[in-house]
Amino acid sequence: MLAPRALNGDTFGSPRHPLTVCIPPKCSYCSEDRPLRIGVVLFPGFQALDAFGPLDVLNILSWSHNISISLLSLTLDPVSTKPPRKATATGQSILPTHTFASAPPLDVLLIPGGLGTRSLAAPVEHAISFIRSNHVHLKYLITICTGTSLAARAGILDGKRATTNKMAWAETTALRPQVEWVPHARWVVDGNIWTSSGVSAGIDVTLAWVEEVFGANVAEEIARGMEYEWRHDPTHDPFAEHWGLWPL
Amino acid sequence: MLAPRALNGDTFGSPRHPLTVCIPPKCSYCSEDRPLRIGVVLFPGFQALDAFGPLDVLNILSWSHNISISLLSLTLDPVSTKPPRKATATGQSILPTHTFASAPPLDVLLIPGGLGTRSLAAPVEHAISFIRSNHVHLKYLITICTGTSLAARAGILDGKRATTNKMAWAETTALRPQVEWVPHARWVVDGNIWTSSGVSAGIDVTLAWVEEVFGANVAEEIARGMEYEWRHDPTHDPFAEHWGLWPL
Repeated sequence: MLAPRALNGDTFGSPRHPLTVCIPPKCSYCSEDRPLRIGVVLFPGFQALDAFGPLDVLNILSWSHNISISLLSLTLDPVSTKPPRKATATGQSILPTHTFASAPPLDVLLIPGGLGTRSLAAPVEHAISFIRSNHVHLKYLITICTGTSLAARAGILDGKRATTNKMAWAETTALRPQVEWVPHARWVVDGNIWTSSGVSAGIDVTLAWVEEVFGANVAEEIARGMEYEWRHDPTHDPFAEHWGLWPL
Repeated sequence: MLAPRALNGDTFGSPRHPLTVCIPPKCSYCSEDRPLRIGVVLFPGFQALDAFGPLDVLNILSWSHNISISLLSLTLDPVSTKPPRKATATGQSILPTHTFASAPPLDVLLIPGGLGTRSLAAPVEHAISFIRSNHVHLKYLITICTGTSLAARAGILDGKRATTNKMAWAETTALRPQVEWVPHARWVVDGNIWTSSGVSAGIDVTLAWVEEVFGANVAEEIARGMEYEWRHDPTHDPFAEHWGLWPL
């Protein structure tokens, strides 16, 4: 269902099109002169670091590679990280660039998590609908923390291996038992779907994705620039042990 | 110059006022019923993770402790993380809550870094003026990455130990040789001034500050909730070695 496809409909990995994704600077077959188009889903109560860890990686990537980033939400109103049900909590407001209805074509979609994912309100329901409607056109889907629950609720992770936040493991995985949940993983790759553990794990999965698509040197340089001790092992997960999810 | 002072002018650390900072839930001497007031300086081209790593820590802190967070900039216009001189770079826009001129009284000021700190334009110059004018009223000043350069240019780090981004070490430290720059440190504490190394080090210094003010259990719980492998040792700095700053 989510097999990567070339821009022209050709299948990635074929002899004519050997790359796993069509990146204009790398793909001599498509050779389209356009940026790699990345979208980020926003909703009230998204977790700040879930989004801005990966976005920091991608912003630095943009200094040397042709990418675009769209921030998508139900409306163009500022979206706060303040969890809807925590009256005294602090939050910061981010400006979307597009609504779900006006979203441009996307190659990659990132879905952050946060307490806001627990909401049944319109912004989250529309985010889930957007994910369900658009995932077949994506080359990559990357979820962070409980952002995985939105993809799971969209039904697009059924039968696939995926991980999510370890503190919220029980309630998140119960939302969609059809997913093959992996309890001991910093991040999990199944086809072109990359899912990560909680919050700061979004930095690791995004660096790993940059390594896959743009090469190890690019990812390493970004991690050093961020002074981030990137762990390359997706099974390094001390938090699974802390929360009693491993060993089983 | 920057010795912590109690709200009523009493000196922290005195027998009458033993705490290092007056936190309403902890301080029976002041017993003011108000939040700890934290401000974050924003300017065009601030680094996303420099701000949102610490802000994620503080947002989680707000779920259990009475704090307020103000985002300060020259105007109330959205502030983009896009570096001013990188035409093709991506960026995200954040809404300030106050201008420098309308800033509320603050107990703590955070200063993120980023390529925008190199600017000589009005937003950065006003940020430096704000820091210079207001630091004497702060209980804590926390700088992240090249955000340290704004405090240094304000002249308030002269004769104090401080650190900053390691990749940008030479150009940043040259801005103010009067500072006692510490090349091998994840973060440095001198009095009530906490300075950190590059980008993701902002998470470590903020967790260390939370430990100092709110206790180790609170900081550990936040780090675990973020699934962040917090390193407690401020001298753990592999990036100083990578960039040839250590051993000397």
